[in-house]
Amino acid sequence: MRNVCLQSAAMTKYGKSLLSARELALVASKKAIIRAGMAPSDIEAGFVANAFSLSEKQGHLGPIIMSGLGIPDVPASTIESACSSGASALREAWINIGAGIYDCMLVVGVEKVSQLDTITATTYFSFGSDYIFEGACGASFPGLYGSIARSHMNKYGTKEEQLAQVAVKNHENALSNPNAHLHKKITVDEVMKSPVIASPLKLFDSCPFSDGAAAAILCSEEFARNLNGSNSERIWIRGSGRAGGTGALHQRADMTSLNASVLAGREAFEQSNLGTKDIDFAEVHDCFTIAEVIATEDLGFFSRGEAAKAEEEGRTRIGGDFPINPSGGLKAKGHPVGATGVGQIVEVFDQLHGEAETRQVKDARVALTHNVGATGGSCAVHIFERA
Amino acid sequence: MRNVCLQSAAMTKYGKSLLSARELALVASKKAIIRAGMAPSDIEAGFVANAFSLSEKQGHLGPIIMSGLGIPDVPASTIESACSSGASALREAWINIGAGIYDCMLVVGVEKVSQLDTITATTYFSFGSDYIFEGACGASFPGLYGSIARSHMNKYGTKEEQLAQVAVKNHENALSNPNAHLHKKITVDEVMKSPVIASPLKLFDSCPFSDGAAAAILCSEEFARNLNGSNSERIWIRGSGRAGGTGALHQRADMTSLNASVLAGREAFEQSNLGTKDIDFAEVHDCFTIAEVIATEDLGFFSRGEAAKAEEEGRTRIGGDFPINPSGGLKAKGHPVGATGVGQIVEVFDQLHGEAETRQVKDARVALTHNVGATGGSCAVHIFERA
Repeated sequence: MRNVCLQSAAMTKYGKSLLSARELALVASKKAIIRAGMAPSDIEAGFVANAFSLSEKQGHLGPIIMSGLGIPDVPASTIESACSSGASALREAWINIGAGIYDCMLVVGVEKVSQLDTITATTYFSFGSDYIFEGACGASFPGLYGSIARSHMNKYGTKEEQLAQVAVKNHENALSNPNAHLHKKITVDEVMKSPVIASPLKLFDSCPFSDGAAAAILCSEEFARNLNGSNSERIWIRGSGRAGGTGALHQRADMTSLNASVLAGREAFEQSNLGTKDIDFAEVHDCFTIAEVIATEDLGFFSRGEAAKAEEEGRTRIGGDFPINPSGGLKAKGHPVGATGVGQIVEVFDQLHGEAETRQVKDARVALTHNVGATGGSCAVHIFERA
Repeated sequence: MRNVCLQSAAMTKYGKSLLSARELALVASKKAIIRAGMAPSDIEAGFVANAFSLSEKQGHLGPIIMSGLGIPDVPASTIESACSSGASALREAWINIGAGIYDCMLVVGVEKVSQLDTITATTYFSFGSDYIFEGACGASFPGLYGSIARSHMNKYGTKEEQLAQVAVKNHENALSNPNAHLHKKITVDEVMKSPVIASPLKLFDSCPFSDGAAAAILCSEEFARNLNGSNSERIWIRGSGRAGGTGALHQRADMTSLNASVLAGREAFEQSNLGTKDIDFAEVHDCFTIAEVIATEDLGFFSRGEAAKAEEEGRTRIGGDFPINPSGGLKAKGHPVGATGVGQIVEVFDQLHGEAETRQVKDARVALTHNVGATGGSCAVHIFERA
């Protein structure tokens, strides 16, 4: 495997959009191509990360997007792994380039769901879990994470007010992210008084349904040096881990941890020869506040049962010792399913290049991204270093 | 890139099934695992090829299938590239193993569409083309291939009776394939008199909607030798090509060739150091009879405008100088979209191991598979050799 460089990354604003998936994908892709200082014709192959484009009556997004970029000969498959589609696509591009198949690839994640009513959109989300045994039996997607939250509270004494702190912090971070879906400062009291969605989770514990797209350009070391000279600092993928977990929650002995996160994190750390202390910030999968708490425990940033306390103490804020989700996370930056894992990479690109403005993590050099499929049926973790 | 071996392949019968996609996928996967002489725990990662599982209210098939195999920790993404999903997934597994990421992977393609009425199923197929500019304007999927057929007839004088010969031959081949969807001997006269679907294409020019699954197990040379000893003959992937084409037909200067097929074929042949004369038989993408004619021209088996004549002369029959679709092809073996490209590999496995019974191509040692997405928005070609 050759070294693989994150040459560029860019995104649309997340939120409700009048654009279709193809248009959102083209906007993000073109921004990333321009930011890379490249032409579309430099791209040799691509991956599209998407989960629900059939709801727009369109599959086979690759040729549509590549044709829109003026490079129809360039192959691009769609990769779907529910909410972890983006990171899964990134990983496959990393492998393609690492193996020497291509020198320059586009990964574009996209989702368009705002044409669906809320009940339909929620039902689509539950297609990521084991629908026959969960969704069809009445366990909505928030309901499954509600069960996970209740388990964690029972086992570790985690409190609803501590979960609310996650939402407050991520909303605060999103205020300085112009691409975030939600720009709304909230308080613990407001979270606690927001409507219950699936007890103990409330509206403000939950990420929004977002439209949006994010694109990343990966390339070989040689390609990067030819493009920008050999002296520039670049962002390298140092580790990539990926693992699965049971599709349904009832198949698990314990719901307070996602085994896919533990395994994927371990693989990425081992590969990178880095440890949690080396990570300057992480973008983790916080579809619900409880998910961020469990993610930071599964990745080893905090001991079991300690993450909620760390959130309460402000250790995960920008400026804390483990900044988590400086972008605002899925919770406030938004969660356009296929785009989410690629959008995390955009934050890595901005932060590691010192371009994150008022949400900049000081001297950020090493970052981790963690992207979960549904309730942990899949997970991909990546570690990046500027060097 | 390391050498990659096709260790096993197996499929369900194609046709109408009462099983769900997850069940079909498990049946094919377990058959392939047993045929490989392995245990599920030997599998380190997988890809699922699928296009329409959302119609069954299920996405994120990877964890569902891996959980069903008793190996929930094993990661598996879904790859969608319309009708070429299967070969796209195979290619990514080839790259993963070639790069040394994994030593043993499962690729399982699956589709379940028989719960949809015919109009809905036809509409789903058109989601693989450029729906806004084609399907939504009334150009059904058969209609697009009808336009392609008409172009080819106008340019080369191809005759409807010659296209009918493709159907007759593939139905004949399928008679001796126990897994084929259609077991029905037909005549040119019957094809010509069958109902017009999209002029000049008739019902018997068209593949059926099939349910079904097919699975392949790929592994590294070292893994294969540890499993079966170092003296056995094996099937190796000698070439893999993949390319894109415009999503919509109106974006093309010419509709008598699929540029994605030309480019993917060229890449696979160059990589393999083999030529058309070395190919003992090919499984090509014949969703409509015209598609087989164009495929064999795009791949260089016949000169432009000569393939229909070759079909008429029987050169593509088992026993001819270029046997095409000994399995019965999409036309008669069936076309469960996500499974199709993997099902072609099952035929390669059977034929190259001499296990194709009465449809055996004599002394088959080298085979080619050609799998197209929709009207040529994507294509993947693979070349296999027993050695």
